[in-house]
Amino acid sequence: MNITVLAGGIGAARFLAGLCDVVPPESITAICNVGDDLKWHGLHVSPDIDSVIYTLAGIEGEHGWGVRGDTHATLEGLRSLGLDEWFTIGDRDLATHLLRTEHLNEGTTLSEATAAVAVARGLRLRILPVTDDPHPTVVRTAEGDLAFQDYFVRRRAAVPVLGFMFPGAAQVRPAAGVIEAIRYADVLVMAPSNPFVSIGPLLEVPGVRDALATSSARRVAVSPIIGGAAVKGPAAEMMAALGHEVSALGVARLYAGLVDLFVLDAIDEALLPDVRALGMDAVAFDTMMTGDAGRARVARAVIEAAS
Amino acid sequence: MNITVLAGGIGAARFLAGLCDVVPPESITAICNVGDDLKWHGLHVSPDIDSVIYTLAGIEGEHGWGVRGDTHATLEGLRSLGLDEWFTIGDRDLATHLLRTEHLNEGTTLSEATAAVAVARGLRLRILPVTDDPHPTVVRTAEGDLAFQDYFVRRRAAVPVLGFMFPGAAQVRPAAGVIEAIRYADVLVMAPSNPFVSIGPLLEVPGVRDALATSSARRVAVSPIIGGAAVKGPAAEMMAALGHEVSALGVARLYAGLVDLFVLDAIDEALLPDVRALGMDAVAFDTMMTGDAGRARVARAVIEAAS
Repeated sequence: MNITVLAGGIGAARFLAGLCDVVPPESITAICNVGDDLKWHGLHVSPDIDSVIYTLAGIEGEHGWGVRGDTHATLEGLRSLGLDEWFTIGDRDLATHLLRTEHLNEGTTLSEATAAVAVARGLRLRILPVTDDPHPTVVRTAEGDLAFQDYFVRRRAAVPVLGFMFPGAAQVRPAAGVIEAIRYADVLVMAPSNPFVSIGPLLEVPGVRDALATSSARRVAVSPIIGGAAVKGPAAEMMAALGHEVSALGVARLYAGLVDLFVLDAIDEALLPDVRALGMDAVAFDTMMTGDAGRARVARAVIEAAS
Repeated sequence: MNITVLAGGIGAARFLAGLCDVVPPESITAICNVGDDLKWHGLHVSPDIDSVIYTLAGIEGEHGWGVRGDTHATLEGLRSLGLDEWFTIGDRDLATHLLRTEHLNEGTTLSEATAAVAVARGLRLRILPVTDDPHPTVVRTAEGDLAFQDYFVRRRAAVPVLGFMFPGAAQVRPAAGVIEAIRYADVLVMAPSNPFVSIGPLLEVPGVRDALATSSARRVAVSPIIGGAAVKGPAAEMMAALGHEVSALGVARLYAGLVDLFVLDAIDEALLPDVRALGMDAVAFDTMMTGDAGRARVARAVIEAAS
């Protein structure tokens, strides 16, 4: 059975970690968001891909990004050179960005560079950036259009959001294998990630929506909203700001027509009839991915519900 | 009084540190070797320039390179990614290479990037790479032609040396200000640096020998060989391997016709007549640059001897 996961950062990383415990990792393809990517002193940083790789390697930082217990000597060194460092890169984390950027500078694609990093970390699943092209998420706010990390890190996601833009997305090409992995999967999972800035950018890549529409897969989405709040990140605030109901039902409405089955948390069980009324199957169970056991339990339940 | 120093790494760095204590730093131009420069995971590393900058900033490592007390978490991170890391870059040191490379990637010259690093470190003298172009030193050995750091670090300078090459040197252009700083200095000092791989590469840059020959400066060389040995580095072994007498006299022969005054250590005082017979003035005094006081003493004595 081939499983393809549309992935953002931390929620997807935890789901994938559980999935690797319950199915052979070689049967998994993660298609990752690159809308958060940034250049950091000339180095190519892919925060979502790194969250996935670090989590799967078991070395993720406490907050879901970076490397656990990392030091920040280079960052302090840059500050001592008078630079305004608002984006935190740890010393061990930096090794990943050096390796990735070195590959890119030698002319390899982001897919190839990602594979090199994943293999070096001992991972056996396939991790694909949705595209090898630049495909940045721009956040429209009352203070103007902001690059994603400018909004999320520099301004701590504290600026009211008006919408999102993906400039040039029509010219972006899906990375090799992306369309096939969506079209020919047995199960396709939209991970419990932010619908606007994690899953949304994936759907903007030409060919991805078509592949999803014509996919042979059982298409499942897992709600990132539990009990009206996001487990992590600004998804709830974004839904509210954009006029969506902040609930699993609100998420289900965003995915209507794209998925066959919607998974929501047991706490939101009362929403099942309304979700089904959108024309999709729906199931409810405990979706909190607490600890290794919790991750595996959720992944197993999602795959069983889809099968 | 304008003082120009032809500089290599550690010996030059210590001499310059002393010089900054005895004359206004703004009157000093250091023209630095870039023959040791290397790309490290895509970052531009200039070891000689960094030795000069770190020493002048008072943060140089114990062995004369890198930053004192630096950590190596990124290096360990790269090793954990399976990479064979034979060149040591510390975490704080890395901040310099990130800043320099970022400037270079934005299209600034190595001179401008060097100035940015020097200013960020609070330095007031002018530090010029001899050229903004690539100008690598190639070490000819019995094991083949080696890039300088491959010879010096990877093989620990343990391979017999047959000679040196500066491929493409005829096309290298001196950096802006280099020729003027040599030609119009009041005092020009060849620092106590390796004649082959520190001062030698400077002389290979088209225009530098001419500027030296027609300079208005009192041209002074300080012997890096004291009592038949180099204070630091492989200069003595290189002299022996290439058939030169391993002594201050041997160094003086290499500089015959290029300098007006040769400074050797008091321990080598007996060589004064032979050095003078080469057609240059010569003086002997304690040239060991031990501690801040020693560096200042040597710099003061050199400037006084030249004046």
